Amino acid sequence: MPSRLIDRAVDQIAGLPGVGRRTALRLALHLLGRTEDDVRRFAEAIQDMKEGVLSCNICGNLGEEEVCSICLDDRREESRIAIVEDLRDLLAIEATGHFKGRYHVLGGVISPMDGVGPADLRIESLIARVSDPVVEEVIFALPTTMEGDTTAFYINKRLQDIEVTVTTLARGVAVGDELQYADELTLIRSLQQRLPYATSTGGTDGSAS
Amino acid sequence: MPSRLIDRAVDQIAGLPGVGRRTALRLALHLLGRTEDDVRRFAEAIQDMKEGVLSCNICGNLGEEEVCSICLDDRREESRIAIVEDLRDLLAIEATGHFKGRYHVLGGVISPMDGVGPADLRIESLIARVSDPVVEEVIFALPTTMEGDTTAFYINKRLQDIEVTVTTLARGVAVGDELQYADELTLIRSLQQRLPYATSTGGTDGSAS
Repeated sequence: MPSRLIDRAVDQIAGLPGVGRRTALRLALHLLGRTEDDVRRFAEAIQDMKEGVLSCNICGNLGEEEVCSICLDDRREESRIAIVEDLRDLLAIEATGHFKGRYHVLGGVISPMDGVGPADLRIESLIARVSDPVVEEVIFALPTTMEGDTTAFYINKRLQDIEVTVTTLARGVAVGDELQYADELTLIRSLQQRLPYATSTGGTDGSAS
Repeated sequence: MPSRLIDRAVDQIAGLPGVGRRTALRLALHLLGRTEDDVRRFAEAIQDMKEGVLSCNICGNLGEEEVCSICLDDRREESRIAIVEDLRDLLAIEATGHFKGRYHVLGGVISPMDGVGPADLRIESLIARVSDPVVEEVIFALPTTMEGDTTAFYINKRLQDIEVTVTTLARGVAVGDELQYADELTLIRSLQQRLPYATSTGGTDGSAS
């Protein structure tokens, strides 16, 4: 590379998930072709986001306050909590307009391969929330992947001494797909047809719950 | 979007070529998951690049000085100039180790569809360089696309009153492909088998040159 500065920028861009070095170089050259003002706006938007965005103290949703707008909204049912992996899945469910409860954003799913264990996710705060008798139902809205299933299985175990109905989105979503790529109708149907968690997994743990 | 700050960062990231809004949101959330230091390094690397990288006054190659390291290198033949679209194509040729001349980086190719005309490219400075009798050969190392061909055609016309041999890379590269994705052997062969420009285009302009 003819410049250490280009090299460093390409390294940084190639550090983004799914971006290779060729793409990173293409993007770096694109940015070099823009005006200084443009590039400053680009860099500042990212830094401002990192500095200004907070996770909601209650549910983990992102926003600019200590408590997010959904948790502050009295019209949202306190009795139902949908458990999602991240903001993108929350946004996908919000876009359907068919869920009036609250959320709990785990910040990931259990994935031993990637070194993500239960302690890395917002699971303790979830258990604490669900322990409040006002909560009647917990809905797993997790990806239909091995990691999503493992996470649901783990959380369900943790919830077994708490009196709460545990449901999961109907598997209208093809197994192996990411939740956020499901079309809206599929997502609406899987919200409406949600099933008790134990039944949905073929009853392996059914007699116990 | 739950935060204007996320929205703004996603807008900026989605402004990069080939990045859609879904990908932009995924990248924004990834950056939110990093430490503040990490994100600062990311943003600073891009701003530092934009502020510190200069185009070579002679050939348009990128670097951190007014004149690039290739133009300053006495061992590079002054008599041969390879004309490339951008830095990536220059790097692809350098990687072969089979070219000992100099470069001229146009900064693009003529593309009326994208509003890029000859005046937007480093063509005047190329003509001035080639007018120096020390230059014996100009090699078109442009993409084998309609735009690349148009650019070569235009430059060849501009060069017709100057006594210089105009050649073009052998078309070992499949038509429609981008130069930088060619494998190294193909690129070496097309350097070695370069042809007089008029011959290579089927002699449409052959009698004149």
